[in-house]
Amino acid sequence: MTTSPGWVHGRITELDRAECLELLTGRSVGRVAFCTADGPVVLPVNFVPYEGGVLFRTAPHNSIAQHLNGRPACFEVDEVDDFTESGWSVLVRGTAGFVDDVHALLRDERPVPWAEGTRSLFVHVPGTSVTGRRLFPG
Amino acid sequence: MTTSPGWVHGRITELDRAECLELLTGRSVGRVAFCTADGPVVLPVNFVPYEGGVLFRTAPHNSIAQHLNGRPACFEVDEVDDFTESGWSVLVRGTAGFVDDVHALLRDERPVPWAEGTRSLFVHVPGTSVTGRRLFPG
Repeated sequence: MTTSPGWVHGRITELDRAECLELLTGRSVGRVAFCTADGPVVLPVNFVPYEGGVLFRTAPHNSIAQHLNGRPACFEVDEVDDFTESGWSVLVRGTAGFVDDVHALLRDERPVPWAEGTRSLFVHVPGTSVTGRRLFPG
Repeated sequence: MTTSPGWVHGRITELDRAECLELLTGRSVGRVAFCTADGPVVLPVNFVPYEGGVLFRTAPHNSIAQHLNGRPACFEVDEVDDFTESGWSVLVRGTAGFVDDVHALLRDERPVPWAEGTRSLFVHVPGTSVTGRRLFPG
């Protein structure tokens, strides 16, 4: 509609699960989303890939913890290049759960939050659905 | 829990509405979130700030269009610095609506999608709630 005739838009391709999980390993921040009575909420958190999904930490009494345990969640990770107008995004969807036996986690399986504050709760979003797209430069 | 004694975490401060809206002007990609029967979905899109909220384009028949019109949505924009482990995030929440009179929009109010495909539908997420946080380096 506002597209000029000479403008070239980037091509989009779908990524398969293996590609998506590989891309997750290169990022340290993603965005957890959950649904509340007032609609969806999206918040960035530090994460690590974990058993085909993602693992992150939060505080036991905040809104993330209240809305996530045993309920559908999604976790979005992306990389955007403003200069070439390209990038990729991965969406991990599944029923979120708390990891009770934290001590069973290996050290490199434990996400380290950048932010201050106690985040003693480990939340796992399993990759029941893992989808992604790559946008190539135009 | 995995925090070593010498580790310094970054301080978090809340941003006011004016700061949030100012930060939106410097970014071209954000993430729209909506709730489906299977839980939340988050997808990156190109956007422009618009009347205290955000405006983006989508295709009339895709999942975004199906789940957004007249329903609560949120739009997340952030900037992350992996090196200093700092950044900011802004969350715009409101009832999404389609902009019918697109021709009333000024040219610089119209978001230009990077990706190929027809995106003739203009979606507005008003800033009924605009919140944000800044994470300073530790």
